[in-house]
Amino acid sequence: MKLDLSRSVAELTAQIVDIESVSGNEQPLADAIAGALAELPHLSLHRDGNAVVARTDLGRPERVVLAGHIDTVPVHSNLPSRLADGLLYGCGSCDMKSGVAVQLRLAAQLTSSARDVTYVFYDCEEVEAERNGLLRLSRVRPDLLAGDFAVLLEPTGAVVEGGCQGTLRADVIARGERAHSARSWLGSNAIHAAGGILDVLRGYAARQPVVDGLSYHEGLNAVGISGGVAGNVIPDECVVSVNFRFAPDRSGEQAEQHVREVFDGWEVIIADVAGGARPGLGEPAAASFVAAMGGAPRAKLGWTDVARFDALGIPAVNFGPGDPQLAHTQGEHVAIAQIQDCERQMLAWLSQG
Amino acid sequence: MKLDLSRSVAELTAQIVDIESVSGNEQPLADAIAGALAELPHLSLHRDGNAVVARTDLGRPERVVLAGHIDTVPVHSNLPSRLADGLLYGCGSCDMKSGVAVQLRLAAQLTSSARDVTYVFYDCEEVEAERNGLLRLSRVRPDLLAGDFAVLLEPTGAVVEGGCQGTLRADVIARGERAHSARSWLGSNAIHAAGGILDVLRGYAARQPVVDGLSYHEGLNAVGISGGVAGNVIPDECVVSVNFRFAPDRSGEQAEQHVREVFDGWEVIIADVAGGARPGLGEPAAASFVAAMGGAPRAKLGWTDVARFDALGIPAVNFGPGDPQLAHTQGEHVAIAQIQDCERQMLAWLSQG
Repeated sequence: MKLDLSRSVAELTAQIVDIESVSGNEQPLADAIAGALAELPHLSLHRDGNAVVARTDLGRPERVVLAGHIDTVPVHSNLPSRLADGLLYGCGSCDMKSGVAVQLRLAAQLTSSARDVTYVFYDCEEVEAERNGLLRLSRVRPDLLAGDFAVLLEPTGAVVEGGCQGTLRADVIARGERAHSARSWLGSNAIHAAGGILDVLRGYAARQPVVDGLSYHEGLNAVGISGGVAGNVIPDECVVSVNFRFAPDRSGEQAEQHVREVFDGWEVIIADVAGGARPGLGEPAAASFVAAMGGAPRAKLGWTDVARFDALGIPAVNFGPGDPQLAHTQGEHVAIAQIQDCERQMLAWLSQG
Repeated sequence: MKLDLSRSVAELTAQIVDIESVSGNEQPLADAIAGALAELPHLSLHRDGNAVVARTDLGRPERVVLAGHIDTVPVHSNLPSRLADGLLYGCGSCDMKSGVAVQLRLAAQLTSSARDVTYVFYDCEEVEAERNGLLRLSRVRPDLLAGDFAVLLEPTGAVVEGGCQGTLRADVIARGERAHSARSWLGSNAIHAAGGILDVLRGYAARQPVVDGLSYHEGLNAVGISGGVAGNVIPDECVVSVNFRFAPDRSGEQAEQHVREVFDGWEVIIADVAGGARPGLGEPAAASFVAAMGGAPRAKLGWTDVARFDALGIPAVNFGPGDPQLAHTQGEHVAIAQIQDCERQMLAWLSQG
């Protein structure tokens, strides 16, 4: 399969959607992308598994990274693509092959941009973190990801979404003492004791801090609870699994410390922590990007791969065509006009100083 | 295998213990019991599967039922029996083959008792209720169980334990609305809502009513809790499984109504209810029994088969050799002296008017 980067971004999106690339099966699409980029003499090309990185080397003072994943969730009777009333339907049309098409069109057209550009196409974003291609690149070739600012072309409805919140999962444990339920007062009921943990959660006042000009919204919630030995036994343990979503003005360590303070006196076992990312909209490249895209940027509340750039010291935002609410739905689609707008806006920004 | 009912109650207990009879495998012991009783001309004998019923028919104004199960929990390297320092060790020695031995010794000796006596030996008490031999008899031959008073020779440490408490299990359900945990305020957390159910349980004041002169002690407890969809989802359901142990001055229906009132406003699904049994110690036969046995009777808090007699309209108590705390333990044992005391006391009570 050969991609023709001289075609319109709409046609290119349809062509990419029609190359099925469910996570783990990205090779045909990665090959097609690498093949098309290899014909562009202004780019140096790198391949790592099913990830492809292409870079300009114009000696500009700033380097921008444009990144997108090329895999999709499983096909659900929504291939091949189809066009109707200005909307392109099909698996991955919204999340995020229209963004990938914008990346490819920019790569083809920007032979002499005002900023150096690194185009990153990676695999396995829709599956467990350990398989994530961007994580793999950040471990084996962090130099390829270096830059002053990164844009992840995930669907945001073409609105700049800055940074992302972090996420922490922990088990908070209530303990008691077993007894026969016919003589319950001889024991101590751990499930009843867990009511104290739920009291803390019910009384928790979540912060809504402004970070780098964007309003975040934290949350501390039980996402699981389990306890019980048998129908006639007073239980001696009850585990409440909590999920703390925290604004990027806290580090992962600070988030952990906060959760331990909130549940002071309870046994707390941290399961995992993924730090968030500051939007960094005060950085010159980011500020000019926001100004060029227009509209009011908003905070990204869910965790995304921008956090990986943040971990590398690179401010990053999410910006791409497609309604994020349509991602992973059978009827996902994207407005052709929105893909075109994104292409035009980013082309203008990268061309000018 | 042949049982010699002329031997001492201690020797007889050892012999019965050595006839392994884990639930479902009672036939050899049931055969031995039926064979021994068949030689006693003052008894009429009935057999139903592995249950054996023997009755005097002396035309006395009162009839007493003495009942015991002949099955045991699984053997755990504790057969054959062994005697040490006046204690008989072995699977079933405490629960409740020493009681069965007392029944058999009484059956052999009481050729002309002051009260008519029905001796019931039944199977499958240690397994799920539907297999219980006493339940089966109560369905197919309730006439065989008829009487004015029943004694279940379960281990009570030779103290009269009157009646039993009932037990009810129910699920109390908190509901909410799912949302992504990064935007938790768009949903409604069912686990947090279940804190209200735990509040009810924590604040519940359990009654300790006196029924027919015995002090019972109720309890309403969570015995299980579960909720959660995924680590990033605000859960829409949390189920608290509760166990209500209720004194025998409430019927099963009243217990259900009480639980519904306590959890007014919550969704309550009753899983099962087993009514308790009043001790009925005011009945003439029961009163004379308590007086004959001596000591202060106490309330039975756990549910036992005396409730089946209660359901048949027959007051019943638990009274037998062996420490109930040793039941189902590998090291279970019984004091020979206590078996002898039980035999002597019951023999005296049944012989006299």
